[in-house]
Amino acid sequence: MRILVVGGVAAGASAATKARRTNEDAEIVLFERGNYVSFANCGLPYYIGGVIEDRDELLLVTPEMFKERFNIDVRINHEVTGVDAKKKTITVRTAEGVVTESYDKLILATGGTPIVPKIKGINKDGVYHVFTVPDADRIVSRLEAGTKSAVVVGGGFIGLESAENLREKGVEVTIVERLPQIMSNMDPEFSDVLIREFDAMGVKVLTGASVAEISGRGKVSGVVLEDGTKLACDMVIMAAGVRSSVELAQKAGLRLGVSGGVWTDATMRTSDPDIYAAGDMVESLNIVSGQKVRIPLAGSANKQGRVAGANAAGAHMLFKGVQGTAIIKVGGLTAARTGLNTREATLLNRDFECVYVPGFSNATYYPDAMPMVLKLTVEKQSGKLLGAQAIGRKGVDKRIDVLSTAIYAGLSVFDLENLDLAYAPPYSSAKDPVIMGGMIAANMIRGELDYALPQELDAYKKAGWVILDVRTDGEFKAGHIRGAKLLPVDELRERYAELDPAKKYLVYCGVGYRAYNACLFLKAKGYTVKNMSGGWRAYKMNV
Amino acid sequence: MRILVVGGVAAGASAATKARRTNEDAEIVLFERGNYVSFANCGLPYYIGGVIEDRDELLLVTPEMFKERFNIDVRINHEVTGVDAKKKTITVRTAEGVVTESYDKLILATGGTPIVPKIKGINKDGVYHVFTVPDADRIVSRLEAGTKSAVVVGGGFIGLESAENLREKGVEVTIVERLPQIMSNMDPEFSDVLIREFDAMGVKVLTGASVAEISGRGKVSGVVLEDGTKLACDMVIMAAGVRSSVELAQKAGLRLGVSGGVWTDATMRTSDPDIYAAGDMVESLNIVSGQKVRIPLAGSANKQGRVAGANAAGAHMLFKGVQGTAIIKVGGLTAARTGLNTREATLLNRDFECVYVPGFSNATYYPDAMPMVLKLTVEKQSGKLLGAQAIGRKGVDKRIDVLSTAIYAGLSVFDLENLDLAYAPPYSSAKDPVIMGGMIAANMIRGELDYALPQELDAYKKAGWVILDVRTDGEFKAGHIRGAKLLPVDELRERYAELDPAKKYLVYCGVGYRAYNACLFLKAKGYTVKNMSGGWRAYKMNV
Repeated sequence: MRILVVGGVAAGASAATKARRTNEDAEIVLFERGNYVSFANCGLPYYIGGVIEDRDELLLVTPEMFKERFNIDVRINHEVTGVDAKKKTITVRTAEGVVTESYDKLILATGGTPIVPKIKGINKDGVYHVFTVPDADRIVSRLEAGTKSAVVVGGGFIGLESAENLREKGVEVTIVERLPQIMSNMDPEFSDVLIREFDAMGVKVLTGASVAEISGRGKVSGVVLEDGTKLACDMVIMAAGVRSSVELAQKAGLRLGVSGGVWTDATMRTSDPDIYAAGDMVESLNIVSGQKVRIPLAGSANKQGRVAGANAAGAHMLFKGVQGTAIIKVGGLTAARTGLNTREATLLNRDFECVYVPGFSNATYYPDAMPMVLKLTVEKQSGKLLGAQAIGRKGVDKRIDVLSTAIYAGLSVFDLENLDLAYAPPYSSAKDPVIMGGMIAANMIRGELDYALPQELDAYKKAGWVILDVRTDGEFKAGHIRGAKLLPVDELRERYAELDPAKKYLVYCGVGYRAYNACLFLKAKGYTVKNMSGGWRAYKMNV
Repeated sequence: MRILVVGGVAAGASAATKARRTNEDAEIVLFERGNYVSFANCGLPYYIGGVIEDRDELLLVTPEMFKERFNIDVRINHEVTGVDAKKKTITVRTAEGVVTESYDKLILATGGTPIVPKIKGINKDGVYHVFTVPDADRIVSRLEAGTKSAVVVGGGFIGLESAENLREKGVEVTIVERLPQIMSNMDPEFSDVLIREFDAMGVKVLTGASVAEISGRGKVSGVVLEDGTKLACDMVIMAAGVRSSVELAQKAGLRLGVSGGVWTDATMRTSDPDIYAAGDMVESLNIVSGQKVRIPLAGSANKQGRVAGANAAGAHMLFKGVQGTAIIKVGGLTAARTGLNTREATLLNRDFECVYVPGFSNATYYPDAMPMVLKLTVEKQSGKLLGAQAIGRKGVDKRIDVLSTAIYAGLSVFDLENLDLAYAPPYSSAKDPVIMGGMIAANMIRGELDYALPQELDAYKKAGWVILDVRTDGEFKAGHIRGAKLLPVDELRERYAELDPAKKYLVYCGVGYRAYNACLFLKAKGYTVKNMSGGWRAYKMNV
């Protein structure tokens, strides 16, 4: 049995080694068009920033190790240019010319390619991608030669991580993002917080802005935006996204899916029974939305590669899908998401509500407790958890992973409020933010109380609702929602008659708890009330 | 409607406030025999250690706040001494005498009482518990007056946390634990690591040791162990556990459960339809074992109190049970558990296997990646996750919470290998330790390879198995299992014929991955092999 693998980074390397473990007797050959196999592409921005000091740390496995340990024949600088699915052969371009290789099973792991927008001057010296080890090498050399300022085009993962790391190196950085927000897989208010953090780091962020031209004589000297703004810089990082490298798949006549990625079944088998595919260029089932999507992330690539390799070599394993879990560090902040955000749930016509859950990383009476804000997307009626987003300075990754696991398992908010999470003061609170989120959302789904979102504030004001602040006088004076009326919760029982029963009250406090108590009291007294979810902290997104 | 609550810490305070939110019109009275309500008892050891500097931080809510915000009548220094369930009254001892109060619904949250072993000299000056704010006050005063050395009796949560915090204050500490290990809700090898950490902190740990006598003239001057050993000290912390305070429940004629705790249904209603119970003295369903257990922890107490309060006031909510999740910090280490450990699964006659998963907090090429060891308890045949234990220096709490959520949801290891957890280099690896654990355990359950545990090493040696080390020469020289034969994995394909096919091989490497590849190769060549789970790192429990 002869198994050929095309592509040697995350998915390809996983596939080849798993195939070996599954079948000791197969001949396994891995073709990689670049110089390196199995390198840590997620580490590239941090190598640029000097956070990862040793370049060798990026190179996880060498071709020699593939040979010695796995008896896998790795051929770097070999570009596979064609597939004949009928003859079961591939065409490979090598330094010595073009050769043909035959296969019993073929595994495509061709990954993605950085999108190169049609911008005038894009080929100038000083324009870089952050995609391969040689890319990083070039940027590091340039930084060492002296770089004062950079424009990063694109406000997704690679763009934001690159911006942070260039700033670490003392470079003046401006991020230019075409959309109205950065980190566009999260709701806009999370983008606002990240922009604030970048601002504190001295990184400018321009949203709703596109680069029209990269200027400079040969070498980059600046960019011109479509609105005419000129930004001087001596480096441009192109991070405008990654498209699927599906050319080979197309040559093989493989079915592409609705997302544009290569279609596979759960065994990672393509429409050709002898060809498997894995990694950034395949499409996956999103188990929350039921949609087929392309999510080019390392975690999925590794899992898919393992499944493809096992099955190509004769085993039977399944890849069950993705949820769009993602996480990013920006300065001292962590932002993360899983499942459906507001835009996604809306596009899918799901019947849902969102709640904000301001919480802390650990018991507030224990040192270094840090604030976070969770936002849960919850299906009405069922209470099923559809998605979660979070931002904060500590413990955000934990909460998102717990919520991701809950979503995987199809849990509802009635389950979240019952989770038995680990509590001691250094790690959490007796009511962990996840459990608290479950309680808040469960109260809402049970119909105990109605909630409004901070984003809906203007609409409520227009509709004549009174904004009622139930915090203390001191908190109110330090900052409050314009036009809000103050009536501290601890005076409410004495003074509630001051409120006009004919009016409607949108109540808020610091994080939502005092307002919750106030609302239930007022509701019992016959008032029409809603709690503004997450209170002042969610309104300001203070973390 | 008149609702009386007995006990004002975690469960009682939660019950009273939830009852108010559920029913604005009820009269709610809370009786607390101590001076304080709703204090942060989990914070007491850290207050003693000065980690929590401000005593007020421990006092979460005051009686005044209960009155103003919740219209709850809190009566401190009121000890409820009797319940007449037929007449629906309670007897209360107050400073002014004994009074009788009637109820429509009664909520018992009497908690626990520190166990006072029958030790000669236990009442001497200098013997303390760590259970209430006044307890902590007394210890802090004594420390300020000058304390050089302390003996902590008991190696559970309170004992270990107290020992760490006394050490923080410069006190010479010895922990005396009756059982052969500390943190006895985890497998013994985890105890070994904690003892090593205490050793590095300068805290002595004596296991399998009991205190026979506390010596000193009036004031403590030392303890005498049952084997005659004398330990000089000027302070003794009694942390021998907490028993359920079920006296009132018994007076009310309520059913006690098999665990000795108060029996309730899922609504937290006791055997008397008008009496609810919540907190440390009730027994709960362990949803993994199906057993009724008493687990006195703050998380459950809060949840149960909330459910009891809601239902007593007319709502309908359920408390679904516990899983025995617990976590502790010892020096720089975090140890945590959820579900069933080896002893528990064995006692329950479950058909299970354990796997070790050595991993890292985050990508090893990113700074500050810290090692951890997970241990999973997995049901054979089904692959269902029954339990998890973990120890390490970073990110342990995250993995245990994810695994706890997985257990709650009834997930199997075939699910774990598919979880979509958040990956970026600062937070995790492309294969998070939890996912890696799923993959390892799933491979095992699928029958791909047999595993042995480090604890079984001697038995394998006796049965004639050859211990085969497949690490490098350098690693071998730095330390290896006595009698092991070295054959580095990367030479195995060339040299495997040196191995006698008539013999059996127990293979190990650093963490289990190289041995896994070696085993599959040797198995394909007809050898009998097992992988020693977790390799050298799990064998040494190096974290």
